[in-house]
Amino acid sequence: MSKPTARDRLAQAAFDLFAERGYEQTTVDDIAERAGLGRATFFRNYRSKEDVIFPDHDQLLEQVRDRLRSASHGTALAAACDAVRLVLLHYLDEGELARRRYALTSTVPALRDREIVSVARYQRLFREYIAGRTAGRGEPAELPAELMAAAVASAHNHVLRRWLRGEAADPVRELDAAMRQVILLFAAHVPDGDGTAVVAFRTSRPLEDLVPAIQQILEPEER
Amino acid sequence: MSKPTARDRLAQAAFDLFAERGYEQTTVDDIAERAGLGRATFFRNYRSKEDVIFPDHDQLLEQVRDRLRSASHGTALAAACDAVRLVLLHYLDEGELARRRYALTSTVPALRDREIVSVARYQRLFREYIAGRTAGRGEPAELPAELMAAAVASAHNHVLRRWLRGEAADPVRELDAAMRQVILLFAAHVPDGDGTAVVAFRTSRPLEDLVPAIQQILEPEER
Repeated sequence: MSKPTARDRLAQAAFDLFAERGYEQTTVDDIAERAGLGRATFFRNYRSKEDVIFPDHDQLLEQVRDRLRSASHGTALAAACDAVRLVLLHYLDEGELARRRYALTSTVPALRDREIVSVARYQRLFREYIAGRTAGRGEPAELPAELMAAAVASAHNHVLRRWLRGEAADPVRELDAAMRQVILLFAAHVPDGDGTAVVAFRTSRPLEDLVPAIQQILEPEER
Repeated sequence: MSKPTARDRLAQAAFDLFAERGYEQTTVDDIAERAGLGRATFFRNYRSKEDVIFPDHDQLLEQVRDRLRSASHGTALAAACDAVRLVLLHYLDEGELARRRYALTSTVPALRDREIVSVARYQRLFREYIAGRTAGRGEPAELPAELMAAAVASAHNHVLRRWLRGEAADPVRELDAAMRQVILLFAAHVPDGDGTAVVAFRTSRPLEDLVPAIQQILEPEER
Protein backbone atom coordinates (compact mmCIF):
# COMPACT_ATOMS: atom_id res chain seq x y z
CA MET A 1 0.00 0.00 0.00
CA SER A 2 1.25 3.45 -0.86
CA LYS A 3 1.55 5.99 1.92
CA PRO A 4 -1.54 8.25 2.12
CA THR A 5 -0.96 11.71 0.71
CA ALA A 6 -1.61 14.88 2.70
CA ARG A 7 -4.75 15.24 0.59
CA ASP A 8 -5.98 11.78 1.61
CA ARG A 9 -5.15 12.36 5.28
CA LEU A 10 -7.08 15.63 5.30
CA ALA A 11 -10.13 13.99 3.69
CA GLN A 12 -10.01 11.14 6.18
CA ALA A 13 -9.70 13.52 9.14
CA ALA A 14 -12.55 15.66 7.80
CA PHE A 15 -14.95 12.75 7.46
CA ASP A 16 -14.03 11.46 10.91
CA LEU A 17 -14.71 14.86 12.46
CA PHE A 18 -17.94 15.41 10.53
CA ALA A 19 -19.18 12.07 11.86
CA GLU A 20 -18.12 12.86 15.42
CA ARG A 21 -19.11 16.52 15.73
CA GLY A 22 -21.27 17.29 12.75
CA TYR A 23 -20.35 19.20 9.60
CA GLU A 24 -21.24 22.70 10.81
CA GLN A 25 -19.32 22.30 14.06
CA THR A 26 -16.06 21.32 12.37
CA THR A 27 -13.59 24.00 11.25
CA VAL A 28 -10.71 23.88 8.78
CA ASP A 29 -8.31 24.22 11.72
CA ASP A 30 -9.89 21.18 13.40
CA ILE A 31 -9.38 19.14 10.24
CA ALA A 32 -5.74 20.19 9.76
CA GLU A 33 -4.98 19.48 13.42
CA ARG A 34 -6.58 16.01 13.32
CA ALA A 35 -4.57 15.19 10.18
CA GLY A 36 -1.38 16.37 11.91
CA LEU A 37 -0.88 19.02 9.25
CA GLY A 38 -0.95 22.81 9.08
CA ARG A 39 -3.62 25.18 7.90
CA ALA A 40 -1.44 26.18 4.92
CA THR A 41 -1.23 22.55 3.80
CA PHE A 42 -5.00 22.35 3.99
CA PHE A 43 -5.40 25.31 1.66
CA ARG A 44 -2.79 24.00 -0.76
CA ASN A 45 -5.02 20.93 -1.20
CA TYR A 46 -8.55 22.29 -0.86
CA ARG A 47 -10.24 25.62 -1.36
CA SER A 48 -12.70 25.19 1.49
CA LYS A 49 -14.22 22.82 4.01
CA GLU A 50 -16.88 21.93 1.47
CA ASP A 51 -14.23 21.02 -1.10
CA VAL A 52 -12.83 18.27 1.13
CA ILE A 53 -16.10 16.41 0.77
CA PHE A 54 -16.55 16.43 -2.94
CA PRO A 55 -14.49 14.61 -5.49
CA ASP A 56 -12.85 16.69 -8.15
CA HIS A 57 -15.89 17.12 -10.38
CA ASP A 58 -14.07 19.61 -12.63
CA GLN A 59 -11.47 17.02 -13.49
CA LEU A 60 -13.99 14.22 -13.84
CA LEU A 61 -16.16 16.38 -16.08
CA GLU A 62 -13.10 16.97 -18.29
CA GLN A 63 -12.48 13.22 -18.52
CA VAL A 64 -16.09 12.66 -19.55
CA ARG A 65 -15.79 15.43 -22.13
CA ASP A 66 -12.60 13.86 -23.54
CA ARG A 67 -14.28 10.47 -23.74
CA LEU A 68 -17.18 11.97 -25.66
CA ARG A 69 -14.79 13.76 -28.02
CA SER A 70 -12.96 10.55 -28.80
CA ALA A 71 -16.15 8.55 -29.56
CA SER A 72 -15.51 7.41 -33.11
CA HIS A 73 -18.54 5.29 -33.96
CA GLY A 74 -22.12 4.73 -32.85
CA THR A 75 -24.81 7.25 -31.99
CA ALA A 76 -24.37 10.31 -29.78
CA LEU A 77 -26.62 8.62 -27.21
CA ALA A 78 -24.43 5.51 -27.17
CA ALA A 79 -21.37 7.70 -26.62
CA ALA A 80 -23.04 9.40 -23.65
CA CYS A 81 -24.06 6.01 -22.19
CA ASP A 82 -20.44 4.92 -22.49
CA ALA A 83 -18.93 8.12 -21.07
CA VAL A 84 -21.16 8.16 -17.98
CA ARG A 85 -19.44 4.93 -16.88
CA LEU A 86 -16.44 7.08 -15.96
CA VAL A 87 -18.51 8.79 -13.30
CA LEU A 88 -19.67 5.54 -11.72
CA LEU A 89 -16.16 4.09 -11.86
CA HIS A 90 -14.82 7.17 -10.10
CA TYR A 91 -17.22 6.67 -7.20
CA LEU A 92 -16.50 2.93 -7.06
CA ASP A 93 -12.80 3.73 -6.95
CA GLU A 94 -13.39 6.01 -3.96
CA GLY A 95 -15.14 3.13 -2.23
CA GLU A 96 -16.02 3.72 1.40
CA LEU A 97 -15.24 7.45 1.12
CA ALA A 98 -18.04 7.86 -1.43
CA ARG A 99 -20.47 6.13 0.92
CA ARG A 100 -19.46 8.32 3.84
CA ARG A 101 -20.01 11.38 1.67
CA TYR A 102 -23.44 10.09 0.70
CA ALA A 103 -24.39 9.60 4.35
CA LEU A 104 -23.20 13.13 5.09
CA THR A 105 -24.84 14.84 2.11
CA SER A 106 -28.12 13.15 3.00
CA THR A 107 -28.21 15.02 6.30
CA VAL A 108 -26.67 18.42 5.42
CA PRO A 109 -28.94 20.31 2.98
CA ALA A 110 -26.19 22.61 1.66
CA LEU A 111 -24.08 19.61 0.70
CA ARG A 112 -26.99 17.72 -0.81
CA ASP A 113 -27.72 20.78 -2.95
CA ARG A 114 -24.14 20.90 -4.14
CA GLU A 115 -24.34 17.24 -5.13
CA ILE A 116 -27.50 17.97 -7.15
CA VAL A 117 -25.75 20.84 -8.91
CA SER A 118 -22.82 18.57 -9.82
CA VAL A 119 -25.19 16.06 -11.38
CA ALA A 120 -26.82 18.83 -13.41
CA ARG A 121 -23.42 19.69 -14.91
CA TYR A 122 -23.04 16.17 -16.36
CA GLN A 123 -26.56 16.28 -17.72
CA ARG A 124 -25.85 19.60 -19.39
CA LEU A 125 -22.62 18.29 -20.92
CA PHE A 126 -24.50 15.31 -22.38
CA ARG A 127 -27.28 17.56 -23.65
CA GLU A 128 -24.88 19.88 -25.46
CA TYR A 129 -22.91 16.98 -26.87
CA ILE A 130 -25.99 15.13 -28.18
CA ALA A 131 -27.61 18.29 -29.54
CA GLY A 132 -24.35 19.22 -31.28
CA ARG A 133 -24.01 15.82 -32.93
CA THR A 134 -27.63 15.45 -33.97
CA ALA A 135 -28.14 19.03 -35.18
CA GLY A 136 -28.95 19.37 -38.85
CA ARG A 137 -30.12 15.80 -39.28
CA GLY A 138 -33.54 16.94 -40.37
CA GLU A 139 -35.42 16.95 -37.09
CA PRO A 140 -35.47 19.45 -34.24
CA ALA A 141 -32.60 18.15 -32.12
CA GLU A 142 -33.05 20.11 -28.93
CA LEU A 143 -35.90 18.30 -27.20
CA PRO A 144 -34.64 14.79 -28.03
CA ALA A 145 -31.15 15.81 -26.82
CA GLU A 146 -32.69 17.14 -23.61
CA LEU A 147 -34.62 13.90 -23.05
CA MET A 148 -31.65 11.67 -23.87
CA ALA A 149 -29.30 13.57 -21.57
CA ALA A 150 -31.86 13.43 -18.76
CA ALA A 151 -32.27 9.68 -19.29
CA VAL A 152 -28.51 9.01 -19.22
CA ALA A 153 -27.96 11.14 -16.12
CA SER A 154 -30.96 9.84 -14.19
CA ALA A 155 -30.35 6.17 -15.04
CA HIS A 156 -26.75 6.61 -13.88
CA ASN A 157 -27.86 8.29 -10.66
CA HIS A 158 -30.32 5.52 -10.04
CA VAL A 159 -27.59 2.89 -10.13
CA LEU A 160 -25.09 5.06 -8.25
CA ARG A 161 -27.62 5.73 -5.48
CA ARG A 162 -28.37 2.02 -5.20
CA TRP A 163 -24.67 1.30 -4.80
CA LEU A 164 -24.17 4.10 -2.27
CA ARG A 165 -27.00 2.61 -0.21
CA GLY A 166 -25.47 -0.84 -0.39
CA GLU A 167 -28.29 -2.18 -2.57
CA ALA A 168 -26.29 -2.94 -5.72
CA ALA A 169 -23.92 -5.89 -5.52
CA ASP A 170 -22.66 -5.43 -9.08
CA PRO A 171 -23.13 -1.75 -9.98
CA VAL A 172 -21.16 -1.89 -13.25
CA ARG A 173 -23.42 -4.65 -14.53
CA GLU A 174 -26.48 -2.74 -13.33
CA LEU A 175 -25.27 0.37 -15.11
CA ASP A 176 -24.79 -1.58 -18.33
CA ALA A 177 -28.34 -2.94 -18.02
CA ALA A 178 -29.72 0.52 -17.27
CA MET A 179 -27.92 2.02 -20.27
CA ARG A 180 -29.33 -0.72 -22.49
CA GLN A 181 -32.79 0.34 -21.28
CA VAL A 182 -32.00 3.93 -22.18
CA ILE A 183 -30.76 3.02 -25.66
CA LEU A 184 -33.79 0.79 -26.18
CA LEU A 185 -36.11 3.59 -25.10
CA PHE A 186 -34.81 5.93 -27.77
CA ALA A 187 -34.27 3.27 -30.44
CA ALA A 188 -38.03 2.84 -30.40
CA HIS A 189 -38.44 6.62 -30.28
CA VAL A 190 -40.37 7.99 -33.21
CA PRO A 191 -39.14 11.21 -34.72
CA ASP A 192 -41.34 12.99 -37.21
CA GLY A 193 -40.48 11.95 -40.71
CA ASP A 194 -41.30 9.82 -43.68
CA GLY A 195 -40.93 6.12 -44.15
CA THR A 196 -42.34 3.30 -42.08
CA ALA A 197 -40.66 0.58 -40.11
CA VAL A 198 -42.40 -2.23 -38.27
CA VAL A 199 -41.03 -3.18 -34.89
CA ALA A 200 -42.04 -6.31 -33.00
CA PHE A 201 -42.50 -5.68 -29.30
CA ARG A 202 -42.51 -8.11 -26.44
CA THR A 203 -44.60 -6.37 -23.82
CA SER A 204 -46.86 -7.07 -20.88
CA ARG A 205 -48.51 -3.69 -21.23
CA PRO A 206 -52.21 -3.76 -22.08
CA LEU A 207 -52.84 -2.94 -25.70
CA GLU A 208 -55.17 -0.09 -24.71
CA ASP A 209 -52.16 1.76 -23.28
CA LEU A 210 -50.48 1.57 -26.68
CA VAL A 211 -53.38 2.52 -28.92
CA PRO A 212 -53.19 6.31 -28.44
CA ALA A 213 -49.48 6.21 -29.24
CA ILE A 214 -50.00 4.11 -32.34
CA GLN A 215 -52.70 6.48 -33.54
CA GLN A 216 -50.38 9.40 -33.03
CA ILE A 217 -47.64 7.69 -35.01
CA LEU A 218 -49.87 6.87 -37.92
CA GLU A 219 -51.80 10.13 -37.94
CA PRO A 220 -49.39 12.69 -36.49
CA GLU A 221 -51.00 16.00 -35.61
CA GLU A 222 -49.87 19.24 -37.11
CA ARG A 223 -47.21 20.80 -34.92
CA MET B 1 -55.36 46.89 -11.53
CA SER B 2 -55.10 46.04 -7.86
CA LYS B 3 -52.65 47.96 -5.72
CA PRO B 4 -49.29 46.14 -5.45
CA THR B 5 -48.78 44.43 -2.11
CA ALA B 6 -45.76 45.07 0.12
CA ARG B 7 -44.48 41.73 -1.13
CA ASP B 8 -44.74 42.81 -4.76
CA ARG B 9 -43.11 46.16 -4.06
CA LEU B 10 -40.18 44.52 -2.31
CA ALA B 11 -39.66 42.11 -5.21
CA GLN B 12 -39.81 44.95 -7.72
CA ALA B 13 -37.33 47.03 -5.71
CA ALA B 14 -35.00 44.06 -5.33
CA PHE B 15 -34.90 43.30 -9.05
CA ASP B 16 -34.34 46.96 -9.87
CA LEU B 17 -31.43 47.18 -7.45
CA PHE B 18 -29.89 43.87 -8.59
CA ALA B 19 -29.93 45.19 -12.15
CA GLU B 20 -28.44 48.55 -11.15
CA ARG B 21 -25.81 47.49 -8.59
CA GLY B 22 -25.47 43.75 -8.89
CA TYR B 23 -26.87 41.08 -6.61
CA GLU B 24 -23.94 40.84 -4.19
CA GLN B 25 -23.75 44.62 -3.71
CA THR B 26 -27.41 44.94 -2.70
CA THR B 27 -28.46 44.54 0.94
CA VAL B 28 -31.83 43.82 2.53
CA ASP B 29 -31.81 47.38 3.90
CA ASP B 30 -31.28 48.77 0.39
CA ILE B 31 -34.28 46.80 -0.86
CA ALA B 32 -36.58 47.87 1.98
CA GLU B 33 -35.54 51.50 1.54
CA ARG B 34 -36.14 51.48 -2.22
CA ALA B 35 -39.58 49.94 -1.65
CA GLY B 36 -40.34 52.65 0.92
CA LEU B 37 -40.82 50.00 3.60
CA GLY B 38 -39.06 48.95 6.78
CA ARG B 39 -36.66 46.12 7.42
CA ALA B 40 -39.26 44.39 9.62
CA THR B 41 -41.74 44.39 6.74
CA PHE B 42 -39.09 42.82 4.55
CA PHE B 43 -38.61 39.98 6.99
CA ARG B 44 -42.35 39.46 7.41
CA ASN B 45 -42.47 38.75 3.67
CA TYR B 46 -39.17 37.04 2.92
CA ARG B 47 -36.65 35.06 4.89
CA SER B 48 -33.61 36.41 3.03
CA LYS B 49 -32.37 38.40 0.06
CA GLU B 50 -32.26 35.18 -1.94
CA ASP B 51 -35.92 34.47 -1.14
CA VAL B 52 -37.05 37.66 -2.87
CA ILE B 53 -35.85 36.26 -6.15
CA PHE B 54 -37.46 32.88 -6.13
CA PRO B 55 -41.12 32.11 -6.43
CA ASP B 56 -42.68 30.18 -3.62
CA HIS B 57 -41.52 26.74 -4.70
CA ASP B 58 -42.79 25.13 -1.49
CA GLN B 59 -46.31 26.24 -2.25
CA LEU B 60 -46.07 25.40 -5.93
CA LEU B 61 -44.70 21.98 -5.09
CA GLU B 62 -47.73 21.41 -2.85
CA GLN B 63 -50.07 22.39 -5.68
CA VAL B 64 -48.34 19.94 -7.99
CA ARG B 65 -48.59 17.25 -5.31
CA ASP B 66 -52.34 17.94 -4.87
CA ARG B 67 -52.89 17.75 -8.61
CA LEU B 68 -51.13 14.38 -8.74
CA ARG B 69 -53.19 13.10 -5.81
CA SER B 70 -56.42 14.05 -7.52
CA ALA B 71 -55.55 12.35 -10.84
CA SER B 72 -58.38 9.87 -11.21
CA HIS B 73 -57.71 8.21 -14.56
CA GLY B 74 -54.88 7.56 -17.00
CA THR B 75 -51.33 6.44 -16.34
CA ALA B 76 -49.01 7.83 -13.66
CA LEU B 77 -46.90 9.33 -16.44
CA ALA B 78 -49.90 11.12 -17.94
CA ALA B 79 -50.73 12.53 -14.49
CA ALA B 80 -47.17 13.88 -14.14
CA CYS B 81 -47.31 15.39 -17.65
CA ASP B 82 -50.53 17.13 -16.65
CA ALA B 83 -49.31 18.32 -13.23
CA VAL B 84 -46.10 19.86 -14.57
CA ARG B 85 -48.28 22.36 -16.48
CA LEU B 86 -48.89 24.08 -13.14
CA VAL B 87 -45.20 24.95 -12.95
CA LEU B 88 -45.11 26.48 -16.42
CA LEU B 89 -48.36 28.38 -15.78
CA HIS B 90 -46.90 29.80 -12.58
CA TYR B 91 -43.91 31.23 -14.47
CA LEU B 92 -46.14 32.56 -17.26
CA ASP B 93 -48.30 34.21 -14.64
CA GLU B 94 -45.21 35.93 -13.21
CA GLY B 95 -44.45 37.23 -16.69
CA GLU B 96 -41.65 39.77 -16.89
CA LEU B 97 -40.56 39.05 -13.31
CA ALA B 98 -39.73 35.45 -14.27
CA ARG B 99 -37.62 36.69 -17.18
CA ARG B 100 -35.76 39.15 -14.97
CA ARG B 101 -35.04 36.32 -12.54
CA TYR B 102 -33.75 34.17 -15.37
CA ALA B 103 -31.40 36.92 -16.54
CA LEU B 104 -30.17 37.30 -12.97
CA THR B 105 -29.75 33.58 -12.18
CA SER B 106 -27.78 33.17 -15.42
CA THR B 107 -25.09 35.50 -14.10
CA VAL B 108 -25.00 34.70 -10.35
CA PRO B 109 -23.78 31.12 -9.78
CA ALA B 110 -25.31 30.78 -6.29
CA LEU B 111 -28.74 31.67 -7.67
CA ARG B 112 -28.39 29.43 -10.68
CA ASP B 113 -27.53 26.57 -8.33
CA ARG B 114 -30.62 27.25 -6.26
CA GLU B 115 -32.76 27.15 -9.42
CA ILE B 116 -31.25 23.76 -10.31
CA VAL B 117 -32.02 22.45 -6.83
CA SER B 118 -35.65 23.59 -7.17
CA VAL B 119 -36.02 21.71 -10.43
CA ALA B 120 -34.61 18.59 -8.80
CA ARG B 121 -37.39 18.73 -6.20
CA TYR B 122 -40.11 18.50 -8.88
CA GLN B 123 -38.30 15.65 -10.55
CA ARG B 124 -38.09 13.80 -7.25
CA LEU B 125 -41.79 14.35 -6.56
CA PHE B 126 -42.66 12.90 -9.98
CA ARG B 127 -40.30 9.97 -9.46
CA GLU B 128 -41.82 9.05 -6.11
CA TYR B 129 -45.35 9.46 -7.43
CA ILE B 130 -44.76 7.32 -10.53
CA ALA B 131 -42.81 4.66 -8.62
CA GLY B 132 -45.58 4.54 -6.01
CA ARG B 133 -48.32 4.07 -8.58
CA THR B 134 -46.48 1.54 -10.73
CA ALA B 135 -45.04 -0.55 -7.88
CA GLY B 136 -46.24 -4.13 -7.76
CA ARG B 137 -47.35 -4.24 -11.38
CA GLY B 138 -44.98 -7.06 -12.12
CA GLU B 139 -41.95 -5.17 -13.33
CA PRO B 140 -39.18 -3.35 -11.46
CA ALA B 141 -40.72 0.12 -11.18
CA GLU B 142 -37.79 2.16 -9.96
CA LEU B 143 -35.72 2.68 -13.09
CA PRO B 144 -38.73 3.39 -15.36
CA ALA B 145 -40.08 5.85 -12.76
CA GLU B 146 -36.67 7.53 -12.65
CA LEU B 147 -36.56 7.83 -16.43
CA MET B 148 -40.14 9.06 -16.72
CA ALA B 149 -39.68 11.70 -14.03
CA ALA B 150 -36.46 12.89 -15.68
CA ALA B 151 -38.24 13.11 -19.03
CA VAL B 152 -41.17 15.11 -17.64
CA ALA B 153 -38.91 17.52 -15.74
CA SER B 154 -36.40 18.02 -18.55
CA ALA B 155 -39.03 18.44 -21.29
CA HIS B 156 -40.76 21.04 -19.09
CA ASN B 157 -37.48 22.87 -18.47
CA HIS B 158 -36.75 22.84 -22.16
CA VAL B 159 -39.99 24.67 -22.93
CA LEU B 160 -39.71 26.96 -19.91
CA ARG B 161 -36.16 27.94 -20.86
CA ARG B 162 -37.25 28.68 -24.41
CA TRP B 163 -40.00 30.95 -23.11
CA LEU B 164 -37.67 32.67 -20.64
CA ARG B 165 -35.31 33.43 -23.52
CA GLY B 166 -38.14 34.79 -25.64
CA GLU B 167 -37.94 31.90 -28.09
CA ALA B 168 -41.37 30.36 -27.49
CA ALA B 169 -44.34 32.34 -28.74
CA ASP B 170 -46.87 29.81 -27.46
CA PRO B 171 -45.25 27.99 -24.53
CA VAL B 172 -48.44 26.19 -23.41
CA ARG B 173 -48.83 24.66 -26.85
CA GLU B 174 -45.12 23.78 -26.92
CA LEU B 175 -45.44 22.13 -23.52
CA ASP B 176 -48.39 20.06 -24.71
CA ALA B 177 -46.39 18.95 -27.75
CA ALA B 178 -43.34 18.14 -25.59
CA MET B 179 -45.49 16.10 -23.19
CA ARG B 180 -46.96 14.17 -26.11
CA GLN B 181 -43.39 13.32 -27.10
CA VAL B 182 -42.70 12.09 -23.57
CA ILE B 183 -45.83 9.93 -23.47
CA LEU B 184 -45.03 8.57 -26.92
CA LEU B 185 -41.49 7.74 -25.85
CA PHE B 186 -42.70 5.55 -23.01
CA ALA B 187 -45.73 4.15 -24.79
CA ALA B 188 -43.27 2.49 -27.14
CA HIS B 189 -41.10 1.53 -24.16
CA VAL B 190 -40.58 -2.19 -23.82
CA PRO B 191 -40.69 -3.58 -20.32
CA ASP B 192 -39.57 -7.13 -19.73
CA GLY B 193 -42.48 -9.48 -19.98
CA ASP B 194 -44.44 -11.93 -22.04
CA GLY B 195 -46.76 -11.32 -24.94
CA THR B 196 -46.07 -9.61 -28.21
CA ALA B 197 -47.49 -6.50 -29.76
CA VAL B 198 -46.67 -5.15 -33.20
CA VAL B 199 -46.32 -1.40 -33.54
CA ALA B 200 -46.08 0.41 -36.87
CA PHE B 201 -43.51 3.18 -36.83
CA ARG B 202 -43.16 6.12 -39.09
CA THR B 203 -39.49 6.97 -38.86
CA SER B 204 -36.67 8.57 -40.80
CA ARG B 205 -34.07 6.72 -38.77
CA PRO B 206 -31.90 4.25 -40.69
CA LEU B 207 -32.97 0.67 -40.07
CA GLU B 208 -29.44 -0.23 -38.92
CA ASP B 209 -29.99 2.00 -35.88
CA LEU B 210 -33.05 -0.04 -34.96
CA VAL B 211 -31.69 -3.54 -35.48
CA PRO B 212 -29.82 -3.88 -32.16
CA ALA B 213 -32.94 -2.76 -30.31
CA ILE B 214 -35.17 -5.19 -32.18
CA GLN B 215 -32.75 -8.02 -31.46
CA GLN B 216 -32.77 -7.14 -27.80
CA ILE B 217 -36.56 -7.11 -27.72
CA LEU B 218 -36.88 -10.49 -29.37
CA GLU B 219 -33.98 -12.13 -27.54
CA PRO B 220 -33.75 -10.33 -24.21
CA GLU B 221 -30.62 -11.10 -22.24
CA GLU B 222 -30.69 -12.55 -18.78
CA ARG B 223 -30.64 -9.78 -16.21
